[in-house]
Amino acid sequence: MITNNAVDNSGTQPVCILADMDTGIDDTLALCLLMALQRAGRVQLLGCVGTYGNVLATDAMRNSRTVLDACGGTEIPVYAGLAAPRWAQGFAVDAGCARFHGANGLGNVCWESVRAQSAANSHSGADTSANSSANMYANTSATAPAVQAIESSQVGVLSLGGERVQPDDPRLAHRQIQYQTDMQSWTTYASKQCGFVLHDGVQAIIDTVRRYGDQVTILATGPLTDIAEALEQAPDIAQQMKLVLMGGSLTQEGNCYDLICETNIFQDPESADVVFHSGASVTMVGLDVTHQCLLTREHMRAFADAGSKLGKMLAQTLKFYIEANEASDPLFAQGSPLHDPLAALVAVEPGVVTCLPLGMKVETRTGVGAGFRGRTIGDPAQVRNAHPRTQVAVQVDAQHAVDEIIDAVLGLCRVVK
Amino acid sequence: MITNNAVDNSGTQPVCILADMDTGIDDTLALCLLMALQRAGRVQLLGCVGTYGNVLATDAMRNSRTVLDACGGTEIPVYAGLAAPRWAQGFAVDAGCARFHGANGLGNVCWESVRAQSAANSHSGADTSANSSANMYANTSATAPAVQAIESSQVGVLSLGGERVQPDDPRLAHRQIQYQTDMQSWTTYASKQCGFVLHDGVQAIIDTVRRYGDQVTILATGPLTDIAEALEQAPDIAQQMKLVLMGGSLTQEGNCYDLICETNIFQDPESADVVFHSGASVTMVGLDVTHQCLLTREHMRAFADAGSKLGKMLAQTLKFYIEANEASDPLFAQGSPLHDPLAALVAVEPGVVTCLPLGMKVETRTGVGAGFRGRTIGDPAQVRNAHPRTQVAVQVDAQHAVDEIIDAVLGLCRVVK
Repeated sequence: MITNNAVDNSGTQPVCILADMDTGIDDTLALCLLMALQRAGRVQLLGCVGTYGNVLATDAMRNSRTVLDACGGTEIPVYAGLAAPRWAQGFAVDAGCARFHGANGLGNVCWESVRAQSAANSHSGADTSANSSANMYANTSATAPAVQAIESSQVGVLSLGGERVQPDDPRLAHRQIQYQTDMQSWTTYASKQCGFVLHDGVQAIIDTVRRYGDQVTILATGPLTDIAEALEQAPDIAQQMKLVLMGGSLTQEGNCYDLICETNIFQDPESADVVFHSGASVTMVGLDVTHQCLLTREHMRAFADAGSKLGKMLAQTLKFYIEANEASDPLFAQGSPLHDPLAALVAVEPGVVTCLPLGMKVETRTGVGAGFRGRTIGDPAQVRNAHPRTQVAVQVDAQHAVDEIIDAVLGLCRVVK
Repeated sequence: MITNNAVDNSGTQPVCILADMDTGIDDTLALCLLMALQRAGRVQLLGCVGTYGNVLATDAMRNSRTVLDACGGTEIPVYAGLAAPRWAQGFAVDAGCARFHGANGLGNVCWESVRAQSAANSHSGADTSANSSANMYANTSATAPAVQAIESSQVGVLSLGGERVQPDDPRLAHRQIQYQTDMQSWTTYASKQCGFVLHDGVQAIIDTVRRYGDQVTILATGPLTDIAEALEQAPDIAQQMKLVLMGGSLTQEGNCYDLICETNIFQDPESADVVFHSGASVTMVGLDVTHQCLLTREHMRAFADAGSKLGKMLAQTLKFYIEANEASDPLFAQGSPLHDPLAALVAVEPGVVTCLPLGMKVETRTGVGAGFRGRTIGDPAQVRNAHPRTQVAVQVDAQHAVDEIIDAVLGLCRVVK
């Protein structure tokens, strides 16, 4: 019953992927991997939805655009995902995410020159404007201002990196807050902030699954808010949806607070629980396996030495991530977890992980008899379900996975100047 | 890498087992199973150590003696295990254990008449006195008085079902406390309390592993205090020790408080952590699999109708357990978990479960960066260890396991009058 995950698609048709990312550093590397695999004919990246999490949502959109452009993917559309979990009116990045990803989500490295150069070498895509984000990171601490349409007196609960806080919480004092408004206002606002046209990312998920069914893989590397919203708006897509998510932890300690929760799931436990119970085919790529796949300083140096601007920028960005990981835990002296790149690889090459079929839940309350808010764990109501729709990756061929990721991205860094 | 567990011993030599039990109701059923399998030539039960947990340690010893005798195992020695976790000077049973196992650990059912009858039908064993416990449960609420050698002013921390409490904690007011003294005083005291001779159970574990090596399986169905003590007194036995334990939960919610911990491990997290890090070969049979193997009212009725006093007493005892489970959780309306019997079966027939090889730890502190005291989880220091010595049972052939357990015990109930 424990099996290597699904059919391996390597060597056949490219795997269609729609990504949903809170584009920080490891998301960036995952995007580079997808672009590298697209060049190799193994992936067709249909688009990238930007959402909140490691960064504010508009930063995720701009980062995805910038990275895709730098990788020669100017034609790939970026969409606007949601700005906050549905239980909050707005979201602020917590100190932890800022520490691991930098104020701009790219390790405070300015990627715009890469973009300009790459965009000049590529054809300009329909949804992109080659110079639109060129000045976005002239000041690396620049972030989008809050939507002022919501008066502060009307604001209820906010999310500070997944924690429910009141608007007067002193920890919000010096943080940027991004508020969720209706989708039309939001895409208009986000387009203006980002400098390129952004359409509704939730609708993009719905439309893509309706069009491609299980021939597209939704890859989620941030909180699952957009996915849950799509499933609730269009319940018909659940049975067709094939989702690979980076998030959760089943057999290893988490990376939040009491080591019980993993960050992506902690950001929006309710949405993650909706996804696990939706009937969608879900592969959970959590800390169980990502903590086995490590990015080293040698890898970083190889990118730097690849002879391209992309490689140099990527190496600088990864340096920030490696140093943050080294400072956070002695276990990461050996390397930094390749969270999102591994999930991206699993979407393309499922056999790299071994999965436990297990009906999952996310606990949404903390307390006696209730569990611990944000914890990913087997759902007791499904404990005797022999054919759950969720697969939890519990083992990984780590050497192979790391080699695949690094070699592919290194190849990209050598061909994309 | 995920494999059916070890070599299956069915059909060859009997499996030598030394059990360590906090003999409540499911331990009792496990003992019946072992005796049934011994009759079938599949098990050689070398002895049973009684320890605290579901009941006070001396109650566990008396219950083991009574149940073994009732099953025709009068020759099988019972040993004195420890009375409390090593971090506490004494132990009291918490309300939860009393609710599931009854004040005497046998669902408040009086087993002495079975014992007397069975003992009369069997030959009398070296370490037993046929009538010694005959009057022990004349009053079912009878429990051993506290050792008075420790003055209350000298008492430090106590364990109330795994929780560290001070001696003046009001919840201890109406509870029996059993204090740990030096082993010689303890075995003398326990022998007097139980009415039969009890030798040092920790020494029995050490001696047995030294003698039989990995040809004996240590089966632990309670807190791991005795096992940890044996491993610390005799580190030489670690590499030889083959342990199957009922305890912990990795992929399912726990059964204590916040659903994070499992009861046996929660009783003594420090000892469990010692065991997981000892180098012993450990198979963890936790709630992951025991919640899939259910005892039903039909099973209970089959025991009652088996035509023997043993069957009737066992059915009455199991009725208490089933009702307690039904009252505790709607999920157990379908049946009550066969925790300890499944672990006993795994000791004999490893292939009934599928295991995940995983270096494990038990978190011993609660808090930011520390985890949650009593939680069983993968050890981050071993996350990239491809050959850990711990196997966690994550899947079970539940129908087969339940059938094996029930059929075997039913067979015993039919032959032992």
